[in-house]
Amino acid sequence: MSNINLSEIKVIKIDIIFKGGLMERNSLMKSVEKDWEKFLLIPISEKLQYFSRDGRIYDCLFAQQLDRDILTHLFKVADVLRKITKNKEGMRFANGLMSHKRSMLYFVQPSTRTFLSFLNACHILGIKTGEIRDTSISSELKGETPEDSVRTFSSYVDLIIMRHPLPNFVEKSAWLMNKTKRPVPIINGGSGKDQHPTQALLDIYTLYRSFNGEIDGKTIAMVGDLKRGRTVRSLSYLMKNYRNMKLIYISPKEFAMEKDILDFLKRHNISYYETDNFEEGIREADAIYMTRIQDEHDKNGESNKVDISAFCLNGNHLNKIKKDSIIMHPLPRRQEISVEVDDDPRAMYWRQERNGMWVRAALISYIFGCDEDILKYK
Amino acid sequence: MSNINLSEIKVIKIDIIFKGGLMERNSLMKSVEKDWEKFLLIPISEKLQYFSRDGRIYDCLFAQQLDRDILTHLFKVADVLRKITKNKEGMRFANGLMSHKRSMLYFVQPSTRTFLSFLNACHILGIKTGEIRDTSISSELKGETPEDSVRTFSSYVDLIIMRHPLPNFVEKSAWLMNKTKRPVPIINGGSGKDQHPTQALLDIYTLYRSFNGEIDGKTIAMVGDLKRGRTVRSLSYLMKNYRNMKLIYISPKEFAMEKDILDFLKRHNISYYETDNFEEGIREADAIYMTRIQDEHDKNGESNKVDISAFCLNGNHLNKIKKDSIIMHPLPRRQEISVEVDDDPRAMYWRQERNGMWVRAALISYIFGCDEDILKYK
Amino acid sequence: MSNINLSEIKVIKIDIIFKGGLMERNSLMKSVEKDWEKFLLIPISEKLQYFSRDGRIYDCLFAQQLDRDILTHLFKVADVLRKITKNKEGMRFANGLMSHKRSMLYFVQPSTRTFLSFLNACHILGIKTGEIRDTSISSELKGETPEDSVRTFSSYVDLIIMRHPLPNFVEKSAWLMNKTKRPVPIINGGSGKDQHPTQALLDIYTLYRSFNGEIDGKTIAMVGDLKRGRTVRSLSYLMKNYRNMKLIYISPKEFAMEKDILDFLKRHNISYYETDNFEEGIREADAIYMTRIQDEHDKNGESNKVDISAFCLNGNHLNKIKKDSIIMHPLPRRQEISVEVDDDPRAMYWRQERNGMWVRAALISYIFGCDEDILKYK
Repeated sequence: MSNINLSEIKVIKIDIIFKGGLMERNSLMKSVEKDWEKFLLIPISEKLQYFSRDGRIYDCLFAQQLDRDILTHLFKVADVLRKITKNKEGMRFANGLMSHKRSMLYFVQPSTRTFLSFLNACHILGIKTGEIRDTSISSELKGETPEDSVRTFSSYVDLIIMRHPLPNFVEKSAWLMNKTKRPVPIINGGSGKDQHPTQALLDIYTLYRSFNGEIDGKTIAMVGDLKRGRTVRSLSYLMKNYRNMKLIYISPKEFAMEKDILDFLKRHNISYYETDNFEEGIREADAIYMTRIQDEHDKNGESNKVDISAFCLNGNHLNKIKKDSIIMHPLPRRQEISVEVDDDPRAMYWRQERNGMWVRAALISYIFGCDEDILKYK
Repeated sequence: MSNINLSEIKVIKIDIIFKGGLMERNSLMKSVEKDWEKFLLIPISEKLQYFSRDGRIYDCLFAQQLDRDILTHLFKVADVLRKITKNKEGMRFANGLMSHKRSMLYFVQPSTRTFLSFLNACHILGIKTGEIRDTSISSELKGETPEDSVRTFSSYVDLIIMRHPLPNFVEKSAWLMNKTKRPVPIINGGSGKDQHPTQALLDIYTLYRSFNGEIDGKTIAMVGDLKRGRTVRSLSYLMKNYRNMKLIYISPKEFAMEKDILDFLKRHNISYYETDNFEEGIREADAIYMTRIQDEHDKNGESNKVDISAFCLNGNHLNKIKKDSIIMHPLPRRQEISVEVDDDPRAMYWRQERNGMWVRAALISYIFGCDEDILKYK
Repeated sequence: MSNINLSEIKVIKIDIIFKGGLMERNSLMKSVEKDWEKFLLIPISEKLQYFSRDGRIYDCLFAQQLDRDILTHLFKVADVLRKITKNKEGMRFANGLMSHKRSMLYFVQPSTRTFLSFLNACHILGIKTGEIRDTSISSELKGETPEDSVRTFSSYVDLIIMRHPLPNFVEKSAWLMNKTKRPVPIINGGSGKDQHPTQALLDIYTLYRSFNGEIDGKTIAMVGDLKRGRTVRSLSYLMKNYRNMKLIYISPKEFAMEKDILDFLKRHNISYYETDNFEEGIREADAIYMTRIQDEHDKNGESNKVDISAFCLNGNHLNKIKKDSIIMHPLPRRQEISVEVDDDPRAMYWRQERNGMWVRAALISYIFGCDEDILKYK
């Protein structure tokens, strides 16, 4: 279900409209709208419309919402935004864009990067921010349901950005909001194990910037815990938006990429191969996407049973990889990338963080329809 | 002592002025000013002047400070403020009103609604905010007294908004501040078990908005833990500002309204009756004010000994209550109101939350004297 | 090493330049730049240039960076800033100075004053703020090194202000930043046991303001735990910037000032004497700098073995000290100063707190080069 292709979605949508017109589709939606359990089961492709307004993403919940057109648009907005904010005057223009808006960051799972980059993305656009990061200081202690808490947040702000440990909880919040008379957009900053669409967004933005907009035809090596890493899953998934991509999955066998993604790649004729030979795998890559072992998902200490030392990038590898390649990592890292690699011009992970802030600012501006103001500036 | 009538206060004040002139009153105040224990014991009615400046509330500490004139004024300011901020230009006007001010939110008890609504009320007015919500990251760990902490906060900001578990601590802070050469206003966001004036403010504002400004003559049912709920106590108290009110107290006998409030109602000829028949009680009400069991105040698990299932509002009740009635709740709720009630147009509790933000913004603007700017806008 | 004189620094710098020109110095620096352990060992005097840009402090890490010229300059900027912000128009000018900048407050040790005064200093200059005060909500949980965390923060903001328990960690962060292509300034808000330069800055600013700019020739009594208090150590150290100072160290013998500082005073011909007679010691002082016992540094409960009751200031002392003296305390206090002293006009500790906010705002404005805009205003 998570492997639905956006091009298929359009077919489904047209099909429904053809069958019974927009009214019928809406009443179809309305019947499931009322029951969250039913809503959860319908394909993501059909849900997307429920989280859109006027042909624009309203709630950003799934990587599936990001097709090539939207990606390219957001990258352009981000590029322009960071350019015009290089001087004081431009930054003040940006700060004024949404200074009449207020947002709420509800992050009840540990996060540094996602939290800070959203916070500062809001600040760049002038959005005032409030935050709850610790449920021990909120009313959940008094027996409030998370759903009521989210609805409460929405009473005070124009935008909710959230990370939550419960699977599908961010989606449920957006579903719930959209049933009310006063919904506010919700952006998913990480929900359960699978969904983290803005991470995928910043990863592809990093490819886009590093390759001067030319992602088509590139070879991307993904290394580490491919089985449980949501970033490599989303990134693989979004590769369908680009042509002639070649993926190299490098991991210990225990952490190989899951079959659902491999099937997906086959269906979309995306070429890939798997290997447990790190040095060989990274040699031809245009981008080497390193990841850490996701031991927080261990059930029986699986991580300790696997030797990952052969899947770490250090100074010795730097003359074995392509000269114009880039090294990425969603961070935080542990030993997967030695500190000595940081000074190499191909080390892109710190810029990748910064790209996250800018492309998130672009996303927010797009949701609120002031992306065009940015593009038109000066 | 908490049942002092504001109309009586005026008599007392005039009496003092008549007896010895303003000077004598001031020296009277000065003698108690120095000793907090003495100050605490004087009637609230006489204290009010100590927390006022130029005929205006300076520290908002007690529901007793809110008479009908002030209530109506604040409701008008809140109404205008939310109207003018519906567009970008108006919101920017509001954001500019107090953008030169800084506030401190010191909330060392769990709170979502009160905290967030004050935070966003500040943001609406452009006030910059700082917060301490967890004493484990502050200097109280190093042995600092709470009084010193509050004085420290006041060094950096123009306004302190606080919630504190110690009874009377917020009042003591304001008393202490007013003795210094550089006081800042303090707003009570909940102090001990009894005082939470802005909750009463938003509850009455909700009645005001729901009934198009006509509160007089309405029937208000209050349901649940009336014995220990500070919101129903304050709301009952403030009913003296309105004419021909009729109160219906619906609760298990164990959680009936306390005698001090009932005596107060008798003294002010406010009609009421008590019942443990929920369905009968809510039938004629114009407003049904639901509350949760305050089990945090349990001494011996009293809450578990009482069956409150008969005091919960669910979908079945919706056709048994008045068509133009409203359903209120200070939130957070547990099972007192079923989720299915949320979609009913009479469910007012989410709007009640939002009313809180707006009327608190109005209160802050009033304390700093920019309420008139709001009323005069355009 | 911590006793290096700033006047000596200039000699060393000139010497190096004379020997081999700027290029050679730079390459000298570059050789140690790469190795933190080596860098840590070079004298602070030689490091200072590494933390400067264009003849201006870039990272504010050590009290040694603050010579008399810089101190006087910052005090003037602070004085002007607080004067022009007394009215709304001036505050808005200040709020606009750096409204295009964003800062990060990373305070992983308890702090109220330093945190809030920096936060509000940022707000005065219009800088948008983000904060991490609790590592349990950040990615350090996922095994990230503190160095990576700091580099991450720098990705999103223009300024990092930090307090950290690890000795030299703030310096290391700045060293690390300066090796990157996109450094941001770092201000030390307290690092390990020794370095807290902005506390020294506000202490001297308090002397400056209290004595109308005339610090030379004053007698400063320092009282309490002189052995382990970093504020009295820094303050003593910075006395070398002033002429004819006389220091009186008043403490139980167990907490006497350390020999390194006494040696430093001798080398710089700063007159001092030590006593354990509190009443005698404070009698002639122009400033009485009270401190608390630093029992957080106890190894075997030393603090409990010493009777400090004779080193506390109470109401009885007020007519025994000079009429134009001032009473200071870095706060938080315990019993060292009775609450009854607070109302005395010589009690300067609350103003000292506020001075901290203003002089920190001045420091930030100076680092970013908008100090001149403040001085030129109107």
